[in-house]
Amino acid sequence: MRERCNIGVDLGGTTVKLAIVDEEGHIQKKWEIPTDTADQGKRIVKDIAHSIEQTLDTIGKSSENINGIGIGAPGFIEMATGYIYEAVNIGWKEYPLKTALEEATEMPVVVDNDANIAAIGEMWKGAGNHHDNVICMTLGTGVGGGMIIDGDIVHGIKGMAGEFGHATVVPEGGYQCNCGKAGCLETVVSATGIRRTALDELRHHPESQLQQIYTNNNDITAKDVFDAARDQDTFAIVVVERVAYYIGLVLANLATTVNPSRIVLGGGVSKAGDVLLTPVNHYFRQYSIDLIYRHTDIAIAELGNDAGIIGAAWLAQTKI
Amino acid sequence: MRERCNIGVDLGGTTVKLAIVDEEGHIQKKWEIPTDTADQGKRIVKDIAHSIEQTLDTIGKSSENINGIGIGAPGFIEMATGYIYEAVNIGWKEYPLKTALEEATEMPVVVDNDANIAAIGEMWKGAGNHHDNVICMTLGTGVGGGMIIDGDIVHGIKGMAGEFGHATVVPEGGYQCNCGKAGCLETVVSATGIRRTALDELRHHPESQLQQIYTNNNDITAKDVFDAARDQDTFAIVVVERVAYYIGLVLANLATTVNPSRIVLGGGVSKAGDVLLTPVNHYFRQYSIDLIYRHTDIAIAELGNDAGIIGAAWLAQTKI
Repeated sequence: MRERCNIGVDLGGTTVKLAIVDEEGHIQKKWEIPTDTADQGKRIVKDIAHSIEQTLDTIGKSSENINGIGIGAPGFIEMATGYIYEAVNIGWKEYPLKTALEEATEMPVVVDNDANIAAIGEMWKGAGNHHDNVICMTLGTGVGGGMIIDGDIVHGIKGMAGEFGHATVVPEGGYQCNCGKAGCLETVVSATGIRRTALDELRHHPESQLQQIYTNNNDITAKDVFDAARDQDTFAIVVVERVAYYIGLVLANLATTVNPSRIVLGGGVSKAGDVLLTPVNHYFRQYSIDLIYRHTDIAIAELGNDAGIIGAAWLAQTKI
Repeated sequence: MRERCNIGVDLGGTTVKLAIVDEEGHIQKKWEIPTDTADQGKRIVKDIAHSIEQTLDTIGKSSENINGIGIGAPGFIEMATGYIYEAVNIGWKEYPLKTALEEATEMPVVVDNDANIAAIGEMWKGAGNHHDNVICMTLGTGVGGGMIIDGDIVHGIKGMAGEFGHATVVPEGGYQCNCGKAGCLETVVSATGIRRTALDELRHHPESQLQQIYTNNNDITAKDVFDAARDQDTFAIVVVERVAYYIGLVLANLATTVNPSRIVLGGGVSKAGDVLLTPVNHYFRQYSIDLIYRHTDIAIAELGNDAGIIGAAWLAQTKI
């Protein structure tokens, strides 16, 4: 068997996603295992190694068909050594992931941040395809990001590059953020932030259809807000407009900094689609230099949950 | 003569700065010629070529001792081909600078933006020395910038990366900017912007010592504002504080984006020194994630007018 594949691993707090990916970036086989976070996550690497071995057996491949393993992990990572300073959701602290996985699998391993591998996956096979300069912003429970410049991931000196969620957009009087600052983008445009903004102001808008949802469920979600805006609910439109304003402003300032050809929005919030993308584009245009605006477009991520495993495989293919 | 040098050229609207720079980045010889902008600048390249030839003769070097020429030019440039789309101050429009200078000198030429070569000069031999991830912000009549990531200049797809002066910091009601937008950083922290802010509010502060300067000179400058702040003039301190707030906020958001180890402030405004740097550091800290703040410092540029010629020589040395 001459063709060589890479293994992409996307390690999350609940599940580990794995895939065998060919050199063209096509997924040959994908599967998941649960993330065993008990005992500070000490069985995770053994579980991954065992699962890879089993799967290769099942499909009749051996480690000789594999070029290497790329793995994306959450938390603060020293990229060069694949050392995890801390990954709170996993239970790891000062954990030598690269070395441990290499010993367990006897294959070469390369480690990166989970947001970065998702960005690189979109660049390789998704919405950033054929773009060498891409900004990916992930709008989920939190707001993360990854940045590709001249075809490669930007890490910065402590692996903190692309932390777009912590750009300050409300310099005074903003909500407190988990990062220790206040007024971060994440506090106002994450799913959590959108829900909070809407809840905080809902009592002033008894006419809104969100009021009915709140009465029924004793809560509202970011999705409720976008659905109501799509139904022309005035209050919901105001909330979405403000979310779009913050995203558009930050994207414009990012584009002024790195001049990408494409911006990819991913994560649950991006699934709102045009009801969000249209006003984001409006504010992006308003706050961008014309020459930058004309050569940058904003697209919704295409790979969904596969972005990480594909990006991790790219990492193995290009860095090993 | 075995040692090889590079020629660095920094092309400005008034003068062309030139230097012969050795491989260690030391200037062996530097000189200037006037920029002849008459007739759409059609004699500039011939003047540069002639001046280089003469100087090499004078110091007993030949073109064989020269590896190549790096040149920084203002305006919009296609980096790969060294083609100038437009350089308003020079008079060039759709001008093939690289080809023209190569034909005139019979040496290989590499072209970049003037703000970028200044940034690379500071990275190589100035305040960014030994830092591979550096942001340089030039606070002069306008506000420019350059960004070094993993030791190389970031251009973006249209050479517009690093346009920090056009980050929007006053989203509503800001001053009009030359770029066509309003509320850009440049409108409030350039020398021009500082002067305008102070002048706009001076009538409300008859007690300020700036009032006396205005009465005497019928004008005030950014330097007057910094001098007065250093003398504890209350109004001047408020103006400087606001300037520092905008710079600190933008630098914090830039650091969150690219996670550099050093930020270099250059240009005339940076000469204000600690009266500006101290409050900039305060706001930079306030708006930065702690882990980023702890590993990033802000320094004042060291090379002054030599940054461009040194950076241009680096360009020739590494890209030819």
